Amino acid sequence: MKYEGKAKRVYATAEPGEYIVEYKDDATAFNAQKRGSWVGKGATNNAITAHLYPQLEAAGVPTHFVRRLSDTEQLVKAVTIVPVEVIVRNVAAGSFSKRLGIEEGTPLTHPVVEYCYKSDALGDPLINTDTALSLGWATEPQLLRIRELALKIRGFLTPYFEQRGVRLIDFKLEFGTLPDGTVVLADEISPDTCRFWDAQTNEKMDKDRFRRDLGGIEDAYAEMLRRVTTEV
Amino acid sequence: MKYEGKAKRVYATAEPGEYIVEYKDDATAFNAQKRGSWVGKGATNNAITAHLYPQLEAAGVPTHFVRRLSDTEQLVKAVTIVPVEVIVRNVAAGSFSKRLGIEEGTPLTHPVVEYCYKSDALGDPLINTDTALSLGWATEPQLLRIRELALKIRGFLTPYFEQRGVRLIDFKLEFGTLPDGTVVLADEISPDTCRFWDAQTNEKMDKDRFRRDLGGIEDAYAEMLRRVTTEV
Repeated sequence: MKYEGKAKRVYATAEPGEYIVEYKDDATAFNAQKRGSWVGKGATNNAITAHLYPQLEAAGVPTHFVRRLSDTEQLVKAVTIVPVEVIVRNVAAGSFSKRLGIEEGTPLTHPVVEYCYKSDALGDPLINTDTALSLGWATEPQLLRIRELALKIRGFLTPYFEQRGVRLIDFKLEFGTLPDGTVVLADEISPDTCRFWDAQTNEKMDKDRFRRDLGGIEDAYAEMLRRVTTEV
Repeated sequence: MKYEGKAKRVYATAEPGEYIVEYKDDATAFNAQKRGSWVGKGATNNAITAHLYPQLEAAGVPTHFVRRLSDTEQLVKAVTIVPVEVIVRNVAAGSFSKRLGIEEGTPLTHPVVEYCYKSDALGDPLINTDTALSLGWATEPQLLRIRELALKIRGFLTPYFEQRGVRLIDFKLEFGTLPDGTVVLADEISPDTCRFWDAQTNEKMDKDRFRRDLGGIEDAYAEMLRRVTTEV
């Protein structure tokens, strides 16, 4: 094994430019202070990501995804991860609402792109692009490209989910670079990394059910897989 | 009195477009959890600001400053304050170092401009320009102009202090708008709002002496006034 993260394991393959990602059933929240696990979580997130990434590629977003290998595994291109997490927000929620005293559910008149330094030890602190640049975490062209891709992904995903009865509240992205320098979307897009609210009821259909002990987490993830893979 | 802040009082005048600002001897830190006061602080900050603002005007930075009226008072144009504080950093220090695990004194390869929402109740949380825009705290042209002016002020102040044996580590700015919409620099530039380190010894010559109980605060402020007003 090359690397074990909180929700995934990464394995080398015979091909140096490709890794296998295994999605685990483990869940963590609040910088791993809260831990849990449920059967089927890994398979669900693997399936949702494997369904979305080829469509993002077709929409002009280069990604690390190659193909799904099994229920819980996918083949990806080996990338160097940019240590800057990107959060895109359509509606105020979570840490944003808490930090700024803005009620959860308040729509934002403009998309908000936030950047955090990817560091478990520091709790993924909020930064901005000046900081990433000045501390050598990314170059200026990379940061411009990351913002451009983040907004393109938002432009694809927001109506995609809306057509399936889901409000895309916010989502987290990670990017990496290929050996030739190309910036590609890495990581996953799933109920672990997005806030999804049912369009009719505003019921939460994402990891907030785990974070906030709302119950029904297995059903919510399964329902999100069903909606994501619905043809409209 | 129109308004009393932590370190200043603002009075109306017979002229609706002009206010009198009185600089107090009070000092606060850590969102007013630490309080102190020393004789002469208000006069020193008034004198330093009154010395710098006309030079910034001459360098192309519109300000609210009209003229110094007395030891502790100055006349300013009435502005509507933009509720976004701007921090410009040349060298890592303070909250930046703490949040990101970067040792104080580490030079930044690029200037970092940070934005905070001006809210005592929330502890002036870090934001970015997307957030300010999406919550209606400033317009896009205002935010672009504020960044442009912040970098212009840095370009003036950094060598100005360097020529007087002082390293400008970082500084906080506030901006306001005139009735015609012009964005102008408001507030003050002083050892309360800047980090100044002696160029030879790296000794702190600013409010960190108060925040961190280093002693010698009166002498440090007096020395900064002497250096600021030195002809070079």
